[in-house]
Amino acid sequence: MRTIDWADGHVVAIDQTRLPHDEVVLDITDVDDLVSLIQSLAIRGAMALGVAGALGVALAAVGAHDSGAEVGEAVEAAAAKLAHARPTAVNLGVGVETVLQVWRQTQSVDDVLAAALRVRDADIEANRAIGQAGAALLDGARTILTHCNAGALAGVEEGTALAVINALHARSPLEMVYVCETRPLLQGSRLTAWELQRAGIPHRVIVDSAAAGLVLRGEVGAVVVGADRIAANGDVANKVGTVGHALAAHRAGIPFVVAAPEATIDAAAETGADIPIELRDESEVLEHQGRRLAAPGSRGLNPAFDVTPADLISAIVTERRSLTELSTTPPGAAAPEAAPLTPRSTT
Amino acid sequence: MRTIDWADGHVVAIDQTRLPHDEVVLDITDVDDLVSLIQSLAIRGAMALGVAGALGVALAAVGAHDSGAEVGEAVEAAAAKLAHARPTAVNLGVGVETVLQVWRQTQSVDDVLAAALRVRDADIEANRAIGQAGAALLDGARTILTHCNAGALAGVEEGTALAVINALHARSPLEMVYVCETRPLLQGSRLTAWELQRAGIPHRVIVDSAAAGLVLRGEVGAVVVGADRIAANGDVANKVGTVGHALAAHRAGIPFVVAAPEATIDAAAETGADIPIELRDESEVLEHQGRRLAAPGSRGLNPAFDVTPADLISAIVTERRSLTELSTTPPGAAAPEAAPLTPRSTT
Repeated sequence: MRTIDWADGHVVAIDQTRLPHDEVVLDITDVDDLVSLIQSLAIRGAMALGVAGALGVALAAVGAHDSGAEVGEAVEAAAAKLAHARPTAVNLGVGVETVLQVWRQTQSVDDVLAAALRVRDADIEANRAIGQAGAALLDGARTILTHCNAGALAGVEEGTALAVINALHARSPLEMVYVCETRPLLQGSRLTAWELQRAGIPHRVIVDSAAAGLVLRGEVGAVVVGADRIAANGDVANKVGTVGHALAAHRAGIPFVVAAPEATIDAAAETGADIPIELRDESEVLEHQGRRLAAPGSRGLNPAFDVTPADLISAIVTERRSLTELSTTPPGAAAPEAAPLTPRSTT
Repeated sequence: MRTIDWADGHVVAIDQTRLPHDEVVLDITDVDDLVSLIQSLAIRGAMALGVAGALGVALAAVGAHDSGAEVGEAVEAAAAKLAHARPTAVNLGVGVETVLQVWRQTQSVDDVLAAALRVRDADIEANRAIGQAGAALLDGARTILTHCNAGALAGVEEGTALAVINALHARSPLEMVYVCETRPLLQGSRLTAWELQRAGIPHRVIVDSAAAGLVLRGEVGAVVVGADRIAANGDVANKVGTVGHALAAHRAGIPFVVAAPEATIDAAAETGADIPIELRDESEVLEHQGRRLAAPGSRGLNPAFDVTPADLISAIVTERRSLTELSTTPPGAAAPEAAPLTPRSTT
């Protein structure tokens, strides 16, 4: 089963808010429903959002065509809603824009659908390539720390950080993957642990704040995470908590690798300061499943992402290249050859 | 109401597992019950544990005396059980040992009780002194980040990190205190937020992993935390997550201050590597109030503390001194004069 796909003339997707306890497949025939599902994180993850944006535009075109409505209006309206469903993920807008441009050029519903399916297929191919490239770079690392879910559930079939972990494990069995639970919505303990359990890869769920201590004690060989948006200078916006792991990895002298498709690179964002950070509802921090966790009356603050400065990142691995010298050759520049990363000697 | 106290011939304490929703006062007349309450974190926090250890030995002495049992045996047995109730907190053992020595020297139940009450009173005095010293050092900081609960609930009346925050707020109203929720047991969102709410100090609860991003974005003026054990070289063991905040503060060039009583300094621990780190039950990470959070079958790892290296710490403030040059004058050495801490200029 793919995380998100096109079947029987509409979008289908796994409801990620129901995992790991229930595997529910959503049949989505309406763009407004799709927008709601993206906002509630039923559909989430950088690449899956890109595919959702592309398929969503196709859904609008097909739906308008089948009901005899004005296709152009429906496509433009859907594109506007989808592109702004979540502010930080750049892939969403890229997926929407790719298919929207096809509509504007061809005015063909068939071409729009074909373009959306190409976005889906390209994601699957890109994930495979990222997995192989990341594994080549980290060959030898036997314990990995990861954050949030950059797995199959964040893409269509394989994901990014978890594609790297899967490829490493296929080369030589990993000793341990430390999975940060990823508060507030627990994508790590719910989704990444679920994927690793299915894949038979040894893993332990930890609270997010345990990561730095484990890294500094030498119990982690490398950190691998995904990305939601990468600035032209190599700064990376990813799930809140990522920069803390980068600081620890930097101090410990172990590789910190970001695995993400090229579409995650936003040339319009010069640095991380240009990336908008989504502030989500404080109830996600203060409550769990409707039960109050925090002291009565206390308020919360809930940034969903943070920015990891390029100088803390050992490498950004995409489907096309491995960027290992971010300070001298950021993603906007030509790609250098990448050599395997080894832990620095620390004093 | 004091967090822990002696009343009507026995120990009384607030049940911290019931906060913030219910304020339940426990009447503790049995040392085994006290040990269980310490292990379940109903009684917790470095200084409160020291007082609990001291009062617990007195409880054994008074109980044995009243029931006509052998007081010496009861005192020695209680001391052994209490001292090992939790492995990382050094204050617990110090509190136990202080009162045990009085018994061994005087064989007097009255002297034992008086010694235990002196431990309690000294804690109250120490908290006040720590608060004033910390506030003098951080004068000017208007936004503070703190972790876990080093407040009144971690001591008898005032706490350490929160004593500093209270004293700062009394000098000039704070703009904001960011309270890390402190997974897995949420002492920050449950206890620290409860104390700040009562004190009328503006605060926001954040997930632990949001701290680094806020610090790097310049939204935090200083980090203040407590300590569970301080090694002779200035390395600090505190609630898991602390070292991540220290790494972020160091990068951002803002003060990172540890507020703790002298009893927290363990001269027998040369460095942080000599401090045992308590591994708690993995269910604390994998479940919440009996409900499974994590993927079925996945296991967890639950270290309760981490070690912050001395070079990441701007100052350790105790009731007697402020140590601001840890690399040259660690806690084991003579105390230098302390000047107010100002953020470093950052590039």
